[in-house]
Amino acid sequence: MTRLRTAPAAAHPTADALALLGLAAEFEFEAFVRLAGDAAEAPSYTQRQEIARASRHAVEREERLVARIVELGGDPAETMAPFDGIVADFELRTTAGDWWERLLKAYVGYELADDFLRLLARGTDPGTRHLVDQLLDDPTHSDLVVRELSAALADDGVLASRLALWGRRLVGDALGVMQGLVARYPALTRLLDASSEQAVGDEDRITRLFALLTAEHTRRMERLGLTP
Amino acid sequence: MTRLRTAPAAAHPTADALALLGLAAEFEFEAFVRLAGDAAEAPSYTQRQEIARASRHAVEREERLVARIVELGGDPAETMAPFDGIVADFELRTTAGDWWERLLKAYVGYELADDFLRLLARGTDPGTRHLVDQLLDDPTHSDLVVRELSAALADDGVLASRLALWGRRLVGDALGVMQGLVARYPALTRLLDASSEQAVGDEDRITRLFALLTAEHTRRMERLGLTP
Repeated sequence: MTRLRTAPAAAHPTADALALLGLAAEFEFEAFVRLAGDAAEAPSYTQRQEIARASRHAVEREERLVARIVELGGDPAETMAPFDGIVADFELRTTAGDWWERLLKAYVGYELADDFLRLLARGTDPGTRHLVDQLLDDPTHSDLVVRELSAALADDGVLASRLALWGRRLVGDALGVMQGLVARYPALTRLLDASSEQAVGDEDRITRLFALLTAEHTRRMERLGLTP
Repeated sequence: MTRLRTAPAAAHPTADALALLGLAAEFEFEAFVRLAGDAAEAPSYTQRQEIARASRHAVEREERLVARIVELGGDPAETMAPFDGIVADFELRTTAGDWWERLLKAYVGYELADDFLRLLARGTDPGTRHLVDQLLDDPTHSDLVVRELSAALADDGVLASRLALWGRRLVGDALGVMQGLVARYPALTRLLDASSEQAVGDEDRITRLFALLTAEHTRRMERLGLTP
């Protein structure tokens, strides 16, 4: 059922910006922890070192986001608490079978999360939006994944088929997590609506979100030579 | 059997410095991973944030040590590889029962490791020694542990007894790991000897090392109000 209505008013622009910052900071914190674990499992020293650096960048971003939360008068612990377990929620839906699946999982998940956060940031004040855009512009992890996976996939059609299928499962899981977040937090709905040119209904909002995120995801899979 | 002999000549001062740097870099890398896991388990937002910062500092130190390895003409992967699993070796000997035991375990282990690395660094070239001294001078983690444990121990004699016992087990385990390292790597033996005023035999060397490390450990336990 598509129920058209005007977008909910952004009655609390600072509270809404804080919701985004809390989500982004919690996401970066959990990405930091998860990437540290990935670094420990990396099959080569070079990968280990680059993933460790990506992990360090994630915790640095979290610290910058926390500083912005404080700047806007928010309490970091309270602002991040609602999003506790956000990466774990995605993690638990599917278990990576080997290193390649693990690498692709992090890539798909983090890139989709970045797109989602950037989209939400469009609905916030210019300072917050600028900070989010600037922080998320970090290719450390994606460059590594594209290089390693491209090399592994070059002559391995079986791996390519397996990872293409895996990528399709992952994008579904990630979109499910985001849909759940939007459903639970009215602030995120308001930010999504504020990021758009026109007011939309609940179903249209999710359809539009999925369309935007899926388009970017498809481009990334194609960059790896995988059928999206 | 105490077998007096002259200290082995530091025939390869750069190779010996590289052994220290490889050990230190591997230690910092593993501390980074382990602290990221601790941050994820921390019982409060403040502790989580501080432990995450300590983890970030550890990986920053690792990056600086790797840069020094490269400066001295070493290959980072080869230089660190012999020490792979060094923290895990300590981890596996005893399993922390709760958060306080986990906090004390990290504190005892990391502080002893720092003392050990500083001592070994005395046997290296001034540039390496200065770098190690400078890098290890970071109170982020120890300040947190002392603050949190002191508060928890203030009115809890039962916890104090338990942690005092736990501290004694931990120091034994950590010294065992270091003794194993010195036994396996002649470079570390040469650095230990070069750090001392006089040449000593194998048993005297270990006795002296344990005496130095235990004295510092005792001071730290007393600072926490624990019977060493």
